[in-house]
Amino acid sequence: MKISVIITLKKDVLDPQGKVIHQTLDGMGFEDVNEVRQGKYFEIDTKETDNDKAKAKVEEMCKKLLANLVIENYKIIDPK
Amino acid sequence: MKISVIITLKKDVLDPQGKVIHQTLDGMGFEDVNEVRQGKYFEIDTKETDNDKAKAKVEEMCKKLLANLVIENYKIIDPK
Repeated sequence: MKISVIITLKKDVLDPQGKVIHQTLDGMGFEDVNEVRQGKYFEIDTKETDNDKAKAKVEEMCKKLLANLVIENYKIIDPK
Repeated sequence: MKISVIITLKKDVLDPQGKVIHQTLDGMGFEDVNEVRQGKYFEIDTKETDNDKAKAKVEEMCKKLLANLVIENYKIIDPK
């Protein structure tokens, strides 16, 4: 089962990379952008076949390795 | 309007970063993982209020800047 996770910086944490992308887009003529925030995306393919168990496992991975909970949030996306 | 984009490596492109994360998870005791693939995530806040127009704009950004279409795919996520 494939579980996807999106990890984003918390709202109040500065995102210099997103800012640079915003400036670049601006310079390319995309002038109606208010803000760009960059995050990370993981697709984890587990042997677990039970949806809830797989999600619980991935949540544990987020807490222990993938996300820095001091400055980041994670969101687990339901598999379709 | 906030539009989200996920950029992933194409299926046949090697993902060394994902592989290292996989090995690390394995070493931490998460042994039922088959594969980990890492991607990028962008949240673009545009002044555009029309859903379709905003998505078209973001698609153009993906093609011109955010994604390298030789090795990456992009997926625009519908705003809720």
